[in-house]
Amino acid sequence: MKLTVKELAERLNVPYEGDSEVLITSVAGLERAGTGDLVFCAKPKFLAQLETTKASAVILPPGLKFERTPVLRAEDPHLAFVRATEIFHRPYRPEPGIHPAAVVSPSAKIGKGVSIGAFSVVGDEAEIGEGTVLFPHVTIYPRVKIGAAAVVHSNTALREGVRVGNRVIIHNGVVIGADGFGYLKGQDGAHIKIPQIGTVVIEDDVEIGANTTIDRATLGETIVRRGAKIDDLVMVAHNVEVGENAILIAQAGIAGSSTIGRNTILSGQVGIADHVDVGDNVIVAAKSGVTGRIPSGAFVSGSTHLDIRDWRKFWALAPHLYDIVKDFKKLKARVEELEKSSKR
Amino acid sequence: MKLTVKELAERLNVPYEGDSEVLITSVAGLERAGTGDLVFCAKPKFLAQLETTKASAVILPPGLKFERTPVLRAEDPHLAFVRATEIFHRPYRPEPGIHPAAVVSPSAKIGKGVSIGAFSVVGDEAEIGEGTVLFPHVTIYPRVKIGAAAVVHSNTALREGVRVGNRVIIHNGVVIGADGFGYLKGQDGAHIKIPQIGTVVIEDDVEIGANTTIDRATLGETIVRRGAKIDDLVMVAHNVEVGENAILIAQAGIAGSSTIGRNTILSGQVGIADHVDVGDNVIVAAKSGVTGRIPSGAFVSGSTHLDIRDWRKFWALAPHLYDIVKDFKKLKARVEELEKSSKR
Amino acid sequence: MKLTVKELAERLNVPYEGDSEVLITSVAGLERAGTGDLVFCAKPKFLAQLETTKASAVILPPGLKFERTPVLRAEDPHLAFVRATEIFHRPYRPEPGIHPAAVVSPSAKIGKGVSIGAFSVVGDEAEIGEGTVLFPHVTIYPRVKIGAAAVVHSNTALREGVRVGNRVIIHNGVVIGADGFGYLKGQDGAHIKIPQIGTVVIEDDVEIGANTTIDRATLGETIVRRGAKIDDLVMVAHNVEVGENAILIAQAGIAGSSTIGRNTILSGQVGIADHVDVGDNVIVAAKSGVTGRIPSGAFVSGSTHLDIRDWRKFWALAPHLYDIVKDFKKLKARVEELEKSSKR
Repeated sequence: MKLTVKELAERLNVPYEGDSEVLITSVAGLERAGTGDLVFCAKPKFLAQLETTKASAVILPPGLKFERTPVLRAEDPHLAFVRATEIFHRPYRPEPGIHPAAVVSPSAKIGKGVSIGAFSVVGDEAEIGEGTVLFPHVTIYPRVKIGAAAVVHSNTALREGVRVGNRVIIHNGVVIGADGFGYLKGQDGAHIKIPQIGTVVIEDDVEIGANTTIDRATLGETIVRRGAKIDDLVMVAHNVEVGENAILIAQAGIAGSSTIGRNTILSGQVGIADHVDVGDNVIVAAKSGVTGRIPSGAFVSGSTHLDIRDWRKFWALAPHLYDIVKDFKKLKARVEELEKSSKR
Repeated sequence: MKLTVKELAERLNVPYEGDSEVLITSVAGLERAGTGDLVFCAKPKFLAQLETTKASAVILPPGLKFERTPVLRAEDPHLAFVRATEIFHRPYRPEPGIHPAAVVSPSAKIGKGVSIGAFSVVGDEAEIGEGTVLFPHVTIYPRVKIGAAAVVHSNTALREGVRVGNRVIIHNGVVIGADGFGYLKGQDGAHIKIPQIGTVVIEDDVEIGANTTIDRATLGETIVRRGAKIDDLVMVAHNVEVGENAILIAQAGIAGSSTIGRNTILSGQVGIADHVDVGDNVIVAAKSGVTGRIPSGAFVSGSTHLDIRDWRKFWALAPHLYDIVKDFKKLKARVEELEKSSKR
Repeated sequence: MKLTVKELAERLNVPYEGDSEVLITSVAGLERAGTGDLVFCAKPKFLAQLETTKASAVILPPGLKFERTPVLRAEDPHLAFVRATEIFHRPYRPEPGIHPAAVVSPSAKIGKGVSIGAFSVVGDEAEIGEGTVLFPHVTIYPRVKIGAAAVVHSNTALREGVRVGNRVIIHNGVVIGADGFGYLKGQDGAHIKIPQIGTVVIEDDVEIGANTTIDRATLGETIVRRGAKIDDLVMVAHNVEVGENAILIAQAGIAGSSTIGRNTILSGQVGIADHVDVGDNVIVAAKSGVTGRIPSGAFVSGSTHLDIRDWRKFWALAPHLYDIVKDFKKLKARVEELEKSSKR
């Protein structure tokens, strides 16, 4: 793919300045850009870096002056750059068709233009929507339903009866619909398994990162709402509901029956206890452990580190601090007494 | 499956009240139940919800009055409900037999009634016990031994020589027996791999959640004792011993050579340092980091979160707190001095 | 493999004492050793245990006396034991050759002596170096390059264009090159995916533990430098650079664009925020959350646990502590005032 600055500006529907005939063949970051690359710069503080770039053109916001290369002007340079990236780089997708070394149940319904890779397995009565791609080594258990234009990468397992929406992207090694973790304590101390007969529903436009696990509900459904984005190695337990456009960053975990609101962000390694409601538009900072309800709009935190000497002193103190503070309050009363008597 | 209230009560071996001929076809939670569903209610606080349910029958403990639908009486309604669930819902299991697209070594011993799914691989001298199910895409390395009536889901790898007991359930993406993480520091700063020549033993009735990893011992065995239950994305390092009926909740991690006692619960995202003994019947609350021995019966905690403003103030203070407390003690002495002198 | 003490000492290039003809057939730990086993003991405190061992020979450092069995002398007994282990125990490797049930693209370049297991997939234009082993169920996407003498275990996915060096060991379920986690916020609240067109480079002699994920760069490369060792269930995000000989212990996570220095150790469950520089030779203790730059040579910590009663008291106090300390400082001023007046 080669486009002149003029052609690219037309495709992006933005104005440009400078030589209209310069050829653009790819996109790159400021440091690594070379001839033919388009870069972007959203803030004045990166202008110095821009001065030395070997890129052939740059996307800038209105008002930032630059004349060494052609400039495309966009209110949101990063968004325009994303659109340009999509023009030059299509994500790798295999051709439509069912690989001869795939095993597809005769009772499965396969939509038009579907691609099923080598060694993928599609179980009885499963449904795969139009244009969906199953890479090699995908295991679709019986009665799974996947919508249209979805992408499922290798080594992913969709367990019996799970439902996945349109345009969902599932990266490698994801497990959707393994049993929720539920047991009763038996008389003899052994654990009695609670059958996990619910399912998982992944709505449209969700993306799920590598090796993430989303467990099936005990009864009913574990739900990930439309547009939610889930990073790698995240754990979503049985009967959880993840809200629309929520963001779950890597290694976060949500215990059973909790709900995460719309647009809420759980940062990396956050843990949410079971049966907890986290509201809409909440930000939970990395590593926080959340044990109770969080109202909409809140910003809570948990992460920290200290120099090892400070850390040791601090935690040696921690178990005694409550008593020390009580002691402090008594001392305050005594000082007040002294002050009174000295005024006398 | 359809049973009358009378037939179901007989199967569960419990008394019932009300119309013996009402038909039950499934189980459900209180909110989602409809005609034909059985529900349960263990505590008076859910009775209000029960009043509006569309369920056809309910399991109640002795003493809770309810007349709108037939009632089954059980000392432990949840346990009776679990037994009813097992009657109406059998977990999905493929038919016995070896799929033509599986690769099974001629030297492997395959028990009666075993099911081996498409694209599963069973290595040399491996043994698969009677009635065990290997779903598609299971990789059994050479010399692995699996007991009877076990279930291994897709994308799981059992590495060379690993031993797995009877009735063990292994969910998707689990890795048992990858090398433990051990290196010596070489003269040049490079790490010298310590060969990991031990193995892993999983005893009977263990369940292991999706994408969990249990590493082989350096020498000897990593052991998970009978009846232990392990959730998703848990890490069990080399030479760890997990006690009978222990519970390891999602994303917990146990470093090398540590031992976890019987009936002990590690909550979500707990970390146990290496060479640490955690006793029997211990509860470690979510997110705790355990660096030293925990005696049997203890309950320790680690998880928290605060409003971001409180959090920032708190951790800005933390490195100085030790000195502040020392200062406080000096001040106390000075106040005592003042008190003495004012009494004079 | 059977060696006399004399033959073993020659192979290890160390002196020995005692009966040169005693046969050694394996290695073991002190507690489990039996006839034919070699053990080692690096410190005087284990000598008591050595007195009761059934091992047939022992490696000791100079100066530790022992006469019950033959002794091999080594400056670093653990290192000599590692070398002996390598003599008696070769890791399991399948025979060279391409299994008939593998699918290898005609445009892939396969080196001499390569082993490709059943159901492995090698994509278009991929390159597999001499002597490299792909176990069964490995998915190599198009244009991946793997060096010589590497080992890739089952259920691993190497995504399009990823590059892996020589002698790299990749355990089961690893995902290298899934999309980095990057979105722009759209006008309607929906997230716009930032195309992840970069790649991942794994340099020589790296080892990667089970179910670990290493994401591709947004632009450019995510890099793991030579000799770094990564444990199970670790998350390395897009555009991260992991330094030479760095150690990432289980369940650690590194967010986008951060750098980890040479020889630096991230302990278990550590989290590193995005765009953070962690220097060389740093130790980050388990569970720490690192949000800002850490200079070379630092040792920082984060992990803790307390008895549940201390924990509850401590965290009930935490949000108020800042104000309490302010209050303390005021009290101190008042005491000083009192002291002055009492001296008058």
